[in-house]
Amino acid sequence: MRTAVLAAAVTELATTGYAALTVEGVAQRAGVHKTTIYRNWKDSDSLVSDALAGHFDSDIPIPDTGSVDDDLRALARSLVATLTTQAGRALITTVLADAVGHPRLAELKQAVFDDRFRRAEPVVTRAVERGELPPDTDPSEFLKALAAPVFFRLVLTGEPVDETTADRAAQVALAAARAGVLSAA
Amino acid sequence: MRTAVLAAAVTELATTGYAALTVEGVAQRAGVHKTTIYRNWKDSDSLVSDALAGHFDSDIPIPDTGSVDDDLRALARSLVATLTTQAGRALITTVLADAVGHPRLAELKQAVFDDRFRRAEPVVTRAVERGELPPDTDPSEFLKALAAPVFFRLVLTGEPVDETTADRAAQVALAAARAGVLSAA
Repeated sequence: MRTAVLAAAVTELATTGYAALTVEGVAQRAGVHKTTIYRNWKDSDSLVSDALAGHFDSDIPIPDTGSVDDDLRALARSLVATLTTQAGRALITTVLADAVGHPRLAELKQAVFDDRFRRAEPVVTRAVERGELPPDTDPSEFLKALAAPVFFRLVLTGEPVDETTADRAAQVALAAARAGVLSAA
Repeated sequence: MRTAVLAAAVTELATTGYAALTVEGVAQRAGVHKTTIYRNWKDSDSLVSDALAGHFDSDIPIPDTGSVDDDLRALARSLVATLTTQAGRALITTVLADAVGHPRLAELKQAVFDDRFRRAEPVVTRAVERGELPPDTDPSEFLKALAAPVFFRLVLTGEPVDETTADRAAQVALAAARAGVLSAA
């Protein structure tokens, strides 16, 4: 039930937008009664928050290959894969557009990003332990350096985003970290 | 007249949005008659296009300090300065949000970005000529690596964007270029 409701919430968000999203609409799409949703989520915002977090968590698993180059490439490729499906692109563009006029959605979006980056930090700390990255590498800065070029193309320039974009983003983050410019302030 | 009209168009775009923007509204804000505008621009889209291009051109001049490190820092700091004024932030968030539902604005936005990056390319080619960057550095990739972290914070994570962000973005782009990962494909 939980999975169906969260998937329905992601689809509702991407198609009808944040302002028009209702617990009733999500319930109908998921084929459950709205009281079922209210038993598990206190309002549509907590539903949206869980739906976004779950979407990015399941689509971008945390790799642990034993090599930071391979881990980063896998992370970047997962990010590209989830953002370039029709549904993924609709989700991110709708959330960004709606966040402009809806401060609560902007907060939710930022919390989801923060959480997602925090959960990927072991990729960086393991690399530091293996001696692959400088000890003072800032995990958050490093992961943002990885994600930034992908989102920049998708949202700002509108250029194609593919595995070449992912691999280059990984190389840029690694080069910057190894040059010591992604260290903690 | 031209300057006043373009400034009025930027303000209209940031405050009323793309869908509600009219030549009449821009004329009123600029204190000119709308026929004056129609003598110089064929429609509101060409006005918006010129207004966006002019805004970014004047706010982000192309530096030529003789050092790629200094040029990049200046470029990144100008970008941060223009995006973090109240008007600049309103402009970019409105344009991004409106571009989702308006393909014509999305095209205009991409053309303005392309043009802006192309006009900054001498910063990179001069650095290559001075031997500061590898000869096969791709100017467009390099400039996007510079801009991506700034926009990523501003639009995606909503984190503060300041001179530290700008300086770090410059360092990341330089480290990546010097490691040879921003070369032409």
